[in-house]
Amino acid sequence: MAEAVPIQGARADRARRTADVLRQQIHAGAYADGLPAESELAAEFLVSRNTIREALGVLKNEGLIERGPKVGTHVAQRKYAHGLDALLGLKETFRNDGEVRNEVRVAMSVVAPPSVAHRLRLEPGAQAVFVERLRFLGNLPLSLDLTYLAPDIGAEVLKHRLETDDIFALIEQVSGQVLGSATLALEAIPADAHSAATLQVPDGAPLLMLERLTSLDDGRPVDLEYIRMRGDRITMRGNLIRSKP
Amino acid sequence: MAEAVPIQGARADRARRTADVLRQQIHAGAYADGLPAESELAAEFLVSRNTIREALGVLKNEGLIERGPKVGTHVAQRKYAHGLDALLGLKETFRNDGEVRNEVRVAMSVVAPPSVAHRLRLEPGAQAVFVERLRFLGNLPLSLDLTYLAPDIGAEVLKHRLETDDIFALIEQVSGQVLGSATLALEAIPADAHSAATLQVPDGAPLLMLERLTSLDDGRPVDLEYIRMRGDRITMRGNLIRSKP
Repeated sequence: MAEAVPIQGARADRARRTADVLRQQIHAGAYADGLPAESELAAEFLVSRNTIREALGVLKNEGLIERGPKVGTHVAQRKYAHGLDALLGLKETFRNDGEVRNEVRVAMSVVAPPSVAHRLRLEPGAQAVFVERLRFLGNLPLSLDLTYLAPDIGAEVLKHRLETDDIFALIEQVSGQVLGSATLALEAIPADAHSAATLQVPDGAPLLMLERLTSLDDGRPVDLEYIRMRGDRITMRGNLIRSKP
Repeated sequence: MAEAVPIQGARADRARRTADVLRQQIHAGAYADGLPAESELAAEFLVSRNTIREALGVLKNEGLIERGPKVGTHVAQRKYAHGLDALLGLKETFRNDGEVRNEVRVAMSVVAPPSVAHRLRLEPGAQAVFVERLRFLGNLPLSLDLTYLAPDIGAEVLKHRLETDDIFALIEQVSGQVLGSATLALEAIPADAHSAATLQVPDGAPLLMLERLTSLDDGRPVDLEYIRMRGDRITMRGNLIRSKP
C-alpha cells in the first residue's frame, strides 16, 4: 500500500475530488455565511490553491456557488432535499422551507395513451385525468409535473385546489385510503428548449427526471407521474437496507 | 370537467408529454426492432405528425434514439437499470448484461478530508483508503466512482482485484459482515470538461451524481462514494413504501 500523501494525479482529477466533498458540505449547510478563503480550503484538502480554484469553478458551473473578486465565494442558492423513501408531496416535504405554489397548466380528462392505460390498469382507449403543473417554491420553479390519474380518483381530485394542494394528499382524501407503494425510475436528462424556458434554466441544463407509479394501499395503481426537477435546486435523498438474497 | 379530447396546448407541450411516455416504453424494451412510423405514433398518441417529430427530436437530443431518412428511428443504445433499493455493486447488478471492467485510476492511502473523516467516524487527520475507478460495461464507460474506505477495511480491499471485483463484495469478504444500510443523495449535474472527457460524453452532459455512505451490518460506516453515472446510460430504479407518520 502506498504511503499517506496528498492524492496525486492531474489537477483536474484533484479538483473533481475536492469539488465532490465540498458539494456535500455545502448541501449540509456548512457554508451558509460564505466559503472559506482559497488558502484555508487548500490547507484543509492538502491541495494547491490552483486546484481549489478549479474545484470552485466546477461548483460555480453547476450553479451552486457564486464568486466575485471583492465579495468572495457564496452559496448561490439553497438546494432542497426531496425524500426518495417517503411518499410525500412537495408541499408536505417543504412545509418548513416556504410556500409551494402550483401553476396549473392543464387539468382535464384525456384519452390515456396505450402504455399509460396499461400501467394504470385501464382498458385500451379509456380516459384518464391529466394534470400538468409548474411547481414553485417561493418565486423559483422547482419542477414541472405531468400526472395521469385513474379516472374515478382524478374526477374527484379535479374538484379541489390544485394550485396549493399536493395531489398525493388529495388522492388519500378522496379515496379514503392511504398510498401504499410506488415504483420509480430516476434519470438525468438535458432540458429540451421548451422545458428549459418553462423551468427558467439554460437550454440543455441537467434535469432530474422521475417517473413514478403510485398505488393505493389496496394495490391499485392510480397515479402515474413524469416529473422534471431542476438539477440545481433538488437533491433526492433516502436510506436503504440491503436486500438479503 | 372538460370532455375527453386530445390534450390541447402548444405543440412543444404536447411533444414533451408524448416524449415522456415514449421514453419509458423504450426503456421497457418495446421498440427493440425500431420505432413505428410517425403516422402510427401520431394515431397512438392522438397528436399530429409534427408533434411526433418534435417528441422524437427531444429523445434524439437525449441520445436515446437515432433517426435517419432511410433507416427510420431506432434505439441508439440500451439504458441500464441500477437498483435504488438494493446494495449491489455494478458487476453483481449487470451480470446478465455483460462484463463490467474497472480502470483503476487511483488506489492508495490518503489523509481523509475533514468531512470525509467525520462521516466515516475517523479521527481528524486520520488516513482513509481512496480508490478511483472508471467503470465500463462492454467498451463504453458507465460511471466514474470515487470511493473512500475506512482504513482497516480499505487496506484489505486493496489486496484484491479491483479491476474486476465490486468493492461492495470485497468489503463483505474482508470484513466477514454483510452490508447493512446506506444513506444516499442523488443529483443531476452537468459534466465538467475533464469528467466529460473521461466518461466520453459532451462537455456539460447531464450526469446522475450519487453520494452514498454505506455501513456494515453492525452500523459502522465504512464506504463513502461519489459516483458520476452517464445520464444516457443508467436509470436508477426502485420501489418504495409510504412511511407511516
